[in-house]
Amino acid sequence: MSAARPRIRVVNPNSNETVTRNLDTALEPFRFENGPEIVCSTLAEGPYGIESQADVESVVMPLRRLVEADNASDAFVIACYSDPGLHVCREGSSRPVFGIAECGVLTALARAGRFGVIAIGQRSIPRHMRYLRQMALIDRLAGERSLEISVAETASGEKTLARMIAVGRELKDEDGAEALVMGCAGMARHRAPLEAALGIPVIDPTQAAVTMALGAVLSAQPS
Amino acid sequence: MSAARPRIRVVNPNSNETVTRNLDTALEPFRFENGPEIVCSTLAEGPYGIESQADVESVVMPLRRLVEADNASDAFVIACYSDPGLHVCREGSSRPVFGIAECGVLTALARAGRFGVIAIGQRSIPRHMRYLRQMALIDRLAGERSLEISVAETASGEKTLARMIAVGRELKDEDGAEALVMGCAGMARHRAPLEAALGIPVIDPTQAAVTMALGAVLSAQPS
Amino acid sequence: MSAARPRIRVVNPNSNETVTRNLDTALEPFRFENGPEIVCSTLAEGPYGIESQADVESVVMPLRRLVEADNASDAFVIACYSDPGLHVCREGSSRPVFGIAECGVLTALARAGRFGVIAIGQRSIPRHMRYLRQMALIDRLAGERSLEISVAETASGEKTLARMIAVGRELKDEDGAEALVMGCAGMARHRAPLEAALGIPVIDPTQAAVTMALGAVLSAQPS
Amino acid sequence: MSAARPRIRVVNPNSNETVTRNLDTALEPFRFENGPEIVCSTLAEGPYGIESQADVESVVMPLRRLVEADNASDAFVIACYSDPGLHVCREGSSRPVFGIAECGVLTALARAGRFGVIAIGQRSIPRHMRYLRQMALIDRLAGERSLEISVAETASGEKTLARMIAVGRELKDEDGAEALVMGCAGMARHRAPLEAALGIPVIDPTQAAVTMALGAVLSAQPS
Amino acid sequence: MSAARPRIRVVNPNSNETVTRNLDTALEPFRFENGPEIVCSTLAEGPYGIESQADVESVVMPLRRLVEADNASDAFVIACYSDPGLHVCREGSSRPVFGIAECGVLTALARAGRFGVIAIGQRSIPRHMRYLRQMALIDRLAGERSLEISVAETASGEKTLARMIAVGRELKDEDGAEALVMGCAGMARHRAPLEAALGIPVIDPTQAAVTMALGAVLSAQPS
Amino acid sequence: MSAARPRIRVVNPNSNETVTRNLDTALEPFRFENGPEIVCSTLAEGPYGIESQADVESVVMPLRRLVEADNASDAFVIACYSDPGLHVCREGSSRPVFGIAECGVLTALARAGRFGVIAIGQRSIPRHMRYLRQMALIDRLAGERSLEISVAETASGEKTLARMIAVGRELKDEDGAEALVMGCAGMARHRAPLEAALGIPVIDPTQAAVTMALGAVLSAQPS
Repeated sequence: MSAARPRIRVVNPNSNETVTRNLDTALEPFRFENGPEIVCSTLAEGPYGIESQADVESVVMPLRRLVEADNASDAFVIACYSDPGLHVCREGSSRPVFGIAECGVLTALARAGRFGVIAIGQRSIPRHMRYLRQMALIDRLAGERSLEISVAETASGEKTLARMIAVGRELKDEDGAEALVMGCAGMARHRAPLEAALGIPVIDPTQAAVTMALGAVLSAQPS
Repeated sequence: MSAARPRIRVVNPNSNETVTRNLDTALEPFRFENGPEIVCSTLAEGPYGIESQADVESVVMPLRRLVEADNASDAFVIACYSDPGLHVCREGSSRPVFGIAECGVLTALARAGRFGVIAIGQRSIPRHMRYLRQMALIDRLAGERSLEISVAETASGEKTLARMIAVGRELKDEDGAEALVMGCAGMARHRAPLEAALGIPVIDPTQAAVTMALGAVLSAQPS
Repeated sequence: MSAARPRIRVVNPNSNETVTRNLDTALEPFRFENGPEIVCSTLAEGPYGIESQADVESVVMPLRRLVEADNASDAFVIACYSDPGLHVCREGSSRPVFGIAECGVLTALARAGRFGVIAIGQRSIPRHMRYLRQMALIDRLAGERSLEISVAETASGEKTLARMIAVGRELKDEDGAEALVMGCAGMARHRAPLEAALGIPVIDPTQAAVTMALGAVLSAQPS
Repeated sequence: MSAARPRIRVVNPNSNETVTRNLDTALEPFRFENGPEIVCSTLAEGPYGIESQADVESVVMPLRRLVEADNASDAFVIACYSDPGLHVCREGSSRPVFGIAECGVLTALARAGRFGVIAIGQRSIPRHMRYLRQMALIDRLAGERSLEISVAETASGEKTLARMIAVGRELKDEDGAEALVMGCAGMARHRAPLEAALGIPVIDPTQAAVTMALGAVLSAQPS
Repeated sequence: MSAARPRIRVVNPNSNETVTRNLDTALEPFRFENGPEIVCSTLAEGPYGIESQADVESVVMPLRRLVEADNASDAFVIACYSDPGLHVCREGSSRPVFGIAECGVLTALARAGRFGVIAIGQRSIPRHMRYLRQMALIDRLAGERSLEISVAETASGEKTLARMIAVGRELKDEDGAEALVMGCAGMARHRAPLEAALGIPVIDPTQAAVTMALGAVLSAQPS
Repeated sequence: MSAARPRIRVVNPNSNETVTRNLDTALEPFRFENGPEIVCSTLAEGPYGIESQADVESVVMPLRRLVEADNASDAFVIACYSDPGLHVCREGSSRPVFGIAECGVLTALARAGRFGVIAIGQRSIPRHMRYLRQMALIDRLAGERSLEISVAETASGEKTLARMIAVGRELKDEDGAEALVMGCAGMARHRAPLEAALGIPVIDPTQAAVTMALGAVLSAQPS
């Protein structure tokens, strides 16, 4: 680690700069004058959005190269809910690398017995299930349900929040979820109103992963 | 949450003030001028050490009362590796309560495939196994081994560290652990040298829990 | 164990004497002239009813003291479906201690592939799920559903039974339960009619635990 | 159930009458003047010993016929540690049928966190593992080890006990077993000395199954 | 294995010759001029249909004797979805023995994340669940649903297919199945149209088991 | 599928032509005059060997492109024991794609209760464990052990076989494996002698996957 102020690099693996700016805003409360620097950047090689397995795989090696090339950061966060390239990035660096899906779920487990996941689309649910099995965390899954909203509707924050509340209520009331993970990198602004509406903890996965990255770099500091 | 600077309360449930002071030192890197306040305190009613199940149970209701009586804190950390009273404290407050065993293990899972636990004594291993089953996290346990050292030896930091390295090496080489959790609240000063000696991540559970508490209070801040 | 007639002590951890009397009646068929003595008693320190986690925890240390103080009993049964203090009581005595939730579920597993649980209230379900995970018995749970009846309705045995049959039918027909556990200490009088109505085994957990206690004290007798 | 004194039928599926007599002796403490009748009988069609899968399967249909033909018994116990014919006997009768392996393991789970099994021969361990998976109880298995003694040595009770203590100590000290199940129908006389030598509960599976049968028939009695 | 052309024996354990002929037809594409011989035969001792546990058990020892008596076959397939006698046949021969339920499920796992099972009747579902637990494959089960059609309706291929499509759609859309196993030996002719209608892989278990048998005998050939 | 003779494409994702030739030889017994064509090819973009996670990831997108570009094949086998690109290839084609690790393990499960894996190097074991968790098949793993031999020693077939027998014996005798999977694409010539030496089934994963591919294309043939 650098002797000076530690640095956490948050990488948005899609090339949509708006998403990166939203991440940056969502992480503002995690920055302190004398605390670790938190830098958000966009993966130039990424597709505009990561929806398919091919999208996921296409960013794996670029992420590895980004981690290897960045000697100025002390920890990395891959800000896509499929955790692309997590293990290959870890292999390529002795510095900790965090995935937001993994950290989102682990953080939900620190708050409640069973958790639910709000996915954007139905199509990603089998991939998420496979990943929960890989992490051996699926026994605490209450359920996963998707928003199934159009891109146009997502643009309208209001409609998206209303749909999230409806889906979250089903996860809570029908599936027994006691905490929720928002299964996407760009939903942080809905976290607080969703939590207020449902009355159970709601986890933004990027905040969860940056929290774990903070813990890793701070634990490495001399006390 | 208080409108002002958020506060995290770390409670040492045993009445040994030296342990509390050590916790306080280990958490120094997590404090920032404009960051959340981190306060360590000793549970007056606690036994001098928590070793038996009776010791664990004896602090449960006092911890609940402490949480209910403290309206100035925004999150709580119970700093004993048996997570005494975790669920009853959560029941008694809408503010998040974290247990260091739970957070220690979850944090290890964000770093590696299978984790090992270093316990102080053999006697606590069945209790820890029961708890890992309860959290449904036991499938990723590589193994748990105990230091089996006398109190006199613990006093000598050097001998304790040597023993931790020996036990950690067994967990890594024989059991396949890829990360370690120190199964005790008061071992933080051995974290860095143990990690350096073994070459795998070592988690201090109190730092892990305070990290999660930081995440919870910061996520609740307006961005 | 006493050389003479062995004794099983059944403790009702709440202070409602009516519940204790009901337990006593339900255990009448388990008493034989030359068989073990079965004594039911009320925990003086207990709350009037055990509904919250705080209620559960409040009786833990009193139960431990009761077990330690009673040198005349050969086995103990804690007659509350949350099994309060089970492990701390076991730690405090070399004599066997049984919890009715644990024994109720284990007994259902000796009768059928998957079991259902009838809970009094929705609120206790997450606690029961946590406990089933702790016992690593959750893979055989078909489902748990709650009666959601008012105290006034419980008083009327007829309405309670009708509601139990309705909930039991859902557990059997929709969830696939092949046996049921009544998730409460005081429902024994409904066991036979419920079993007759549903056509699958119904387990009263107190009878299940006293059965196991009988087995333990009888196995220890010279043959 | 018969209106009069209930009857439990214990069937030894091998044709070795000495084993049946030993079972009868081991169950003596479970008989009371006004309690259920406990009758032990030998399956005439059974092989002299049940060691192979073929031995197991050869008694399945004879056991079914025995259960169907016996209208005078209120519950059945199949006294072979492979639980031959358990499900087909249950299908053929509305009266409860218990297997000693299932009941032995479930009873161990009511006494401790993780259990060990003492098998007669190495060859039966894969069969037992398959059965523990079927019951979804394998997550609490600490280990299974076999005596690997000759028939001549088994005849000598003393040598058998010494070997059981040695194997039991390995299960306790190396595998972490906190209770033991004797994986055979005919070892009951070693239960008490084995328990005394090891200091952890030891379960005789036939006593465990007869206990559960007692519970079933007594619960069905009017109170 | 015979030096000459290897032979796979497929045994229909029920005595319905029409079923055997259907199996024979369904396996036609697996036969090659210079490939292994695939012989279908009927178990003379079998019941006309295998529906109950007693039906299953009744064919176990006859199957064992058939395998032991047949020295001309290099591999065996037991063509009943309850895999009767699988382990006792394996014990009786060094040649591989395959069960169609086991192979059907394993083959589905090679095609998709979670699978569904179409059962003929509701009654067999608990038996199938027990078997999936025994194989430790139940964590990937999306669901099992039964056709619940009368024998008369089964005779009419058209109505059966329509019902299979309806049930398959529920497994896919409501339970999340990504592949289906037809839980019966005699449904092969519906495989292709069912797969076409649902758009997910559909596995005929007999074809799956014969495939595995082919692999076993071909792997044993010198290359 | 092509109306004519179906074709199975086996892709060696590393660029070592000797490995491809060895695969081709090992698959010779699976070819029949009127049977499916089995074509082995080398991935031009692949590294010379696949040892690290980076090696694995580097071939993922090239494999996807290969599958998408090949309209003449009816099924694909990815012949590397890390199953690189399995899910992204499946997403890119309606034709079945098989991974040799997945098929090797599933095939072992059709032969025995618990399986062992022989890995080339220690380093790949955590990756394999993660994959077994993802497939939810780890509960039947007896153990995985690595050969730890130098490349020079691998060249000498004799020494490699001797080492495989030694490691296989440990898996069988110490870990309880009842079948073995060779955890590498290029070991097929050792399969038969290893099986003969150990007396338990040994699975070559490429043969296992080609077998499953055969089953898929043959099941799709009109009968």
